[in-house]
Amino acid sequence: MIIDLNRAAELLKDNDNILILVHGNPDGDTLGCGFALKAALTEIGKNAAVRCSDKIPPKYSYLGELDEDFDEDFVVAVDVADPKLLGKELETAYAGKIQLCIDHHSSNLKYADYTLLDSNAAAACEIILEIIKTLGVQINSKMANCIYTGLCTDTGCFKYSNVTPRTMRMAADMIEAGAENAKINTVMFDTKTRTYAKLEKLALDSMKLYLDGRCAVITITQDMYSESGSNETEVDAIAALPRQIEGVLVGVTMREKEDGDFKVSMRSHEPVDVSEICASMGGGGHRCAGGCKVAGPADKAAQTVLMNVEKYLDRQ
Amino acid sequence: MIIDLNRAAELLKDNDNILILVHGNPDGDTLGCGFALKAALTEIGKNAAVRCSDKIPPKYSYLGELDEDFDEDFVVAVDVADPKLLGKELETAYAGKIQLCIDHHSSNLKYADYTLLDSNAAAACEIILEIIKTLGVQINSKMANCIYTGLCTDTGCFKYSNVTPRTMRMAADMIEAGAENAKINTVMFDTKTRTYAKLEKLALDSMKLYLDGRCAVITITQDMYSESGSNETEVDAIAALPRQIEGVLVGVTMREKEDGDFKVSMRSHEPVDVSEICASMGGGGHRCAGGCKVAGPADKAAQTVLMNVEKYLDRQ
Repeated sequence: MIIDLNRAAELLKDNDNILILVHGNPDGDTLGCGFALKAALTEIGKNAAVRCSDKIPPKYSYLGELDEDFDEDFVVAVDVADPKLLGKELETAYAGKIQLCIDHHSSNLKYADYTLLDSNAAAACEIILEIIKTLGVQINSKMANCIYTGLCTDTGCFKYSNVTPRTMRMAADMIEAGAENAKINTVMFDTKTRTYAKLEKLALDSMKLYLDGRCAVITITQDMYSESGSNETEVDAIAALPRQIEGVLVGVTMREKEDGDFKVSMRSHEPVDVSEICASMGGGGHRCAGGCKVAGPADKAAQTVLMNVEKYLDRQ
Repeated sequence: MIIDLNRAAELLKDNDNILILVHGNPDGDTLGCGFALKAALTEIGKNAAVRCSDKIPPKYSYLGELDEDFDEDFVVAVDVADPKLLGKELETAYAGKIQLCIDHHSSNLKYADYTLLDSNAAAACEIILEIIKTLGVQINSKMANCIYTGLCTDTGCFKYSNVTPRTMRMAADMIEAGAENAKINTVMFDTKTRTYAKLEKLALDSMKLYLDGRCAVITITQDMYSESGSNETEVDAIAALPRQIEGVLVGVTMREKEDGDFKVSMRSHEPVDVSEICASMGGGGHRCAGGCKVAGPADKAAQTVLMNVEKYLDRQ
């Protein structure tokens, strides 16, 4: 059942021992949601906990700590479009038992008893902030840090097209409420581990331009992980790099998996719809960010990808 | 004479044939100020023009076009802390003849007859927006694009510590008034020319860590400009890279000049004050961003810089 903000706030007020689930491989938005909501519920006298199938990456550790055992009476999922995204542990334990889902993905499967969905929100934290205000809770600096983190991480520091005037105004309010915006931005957008920096250099060295400079391809091999000391967990940011080159319409990042096949991330500039190109290889995604899997070895994988990109561009 | 917003607006209302001067090597903020103010003055029936000693870099061309000859009765400088920053042509023509200066640099020399200064403004465009509102002009999408450009370029897309709640709220208002925020952000923060991309790769290849990983040094040589096809005009963004490495307190970028000496850009994390380190080599700057000149060749220049960085860190 789809509900509005007031009904969601009522549900939280009417219940206690509230368990908040965030998605696996947690990011700034799901964690920001979880810990801000827990803090607000605690303020109105509720017992609340946050759980995740995976550990919190060190850079998000200031947001809060996960709870272990908790005797819950009410289960809320935040920023979780599909129970599968909870990760193995929590999916097994809670799929089918989630009463309230608060989310901003238009792809949300409406798997919960009650769903509060706002796909215009750049970050799920925007909705959580509305909920906290509806609960009548004053935003303190801890909540402000959580909400600000969700806002900035889901928008590439307010860079992407999902940003609305509301996003910017909420960020202003959070700064006023004590969010350490500059410090958070430095950690999220201006810090590279030494291993990531090495991997990025190898990745850039591998970049090649094709199709008259309209397509740039980065290839990351298992050897590069060994050479840099980096691994899969640090690699996501690289997907943004090939599209940055002037004239490139389709930026491709191919990551070799342990079995020798490739995970492909594709980014485009308008009007190229990479979800269509990825779909032609059995994948999917959004207009400007998609993905698929392609059989190795590297040169065969690149050929497959380039053939499909060329076919698409020729049709345009 | 230091004046307030209302007095500045009165001066603009009481005069006509208003020439707006922006600083040399123009950036998004000075150009955003210039073209937004011109548009607003035109709205209230004034004759206005924008001039600059240098050409507008192509990525800012959507903001407007410079005027050539103009028969001015009143001269305004925007985002210009010192008449020297006007660049040769306009400094020669207008130093000592500027009636109104609108600026956000605390280092402003108060060289104009009247100075409107707000050093809490992250961008001079914040002050221009206040002026436009005080003039009673409705912000249209052209002005919104100008003001938004100043806000985002002077804050690293709302990333830096100069951002205030006002900055974020003004950006929200500009998006509402029609600023093409996502498009502008892509051009400013997600686009690299091919030559810059090559230079960046060479620069990253040159990066070395010193002083137990607390200092990272990038060296850009004249040879690298030849090899990449890039030049001095594209190099500024590289100064941000060495400080991004985890554990680095002082990030140094040394750029070889044609005469073989080096221009040094230094960036730090708190609590390191690079203006002090740069001052010890005859330069200066702010706490977290400074610069100086050091004699070549490269290895001697690096030694000079590292010695001064080490001396400072040892004192801490």
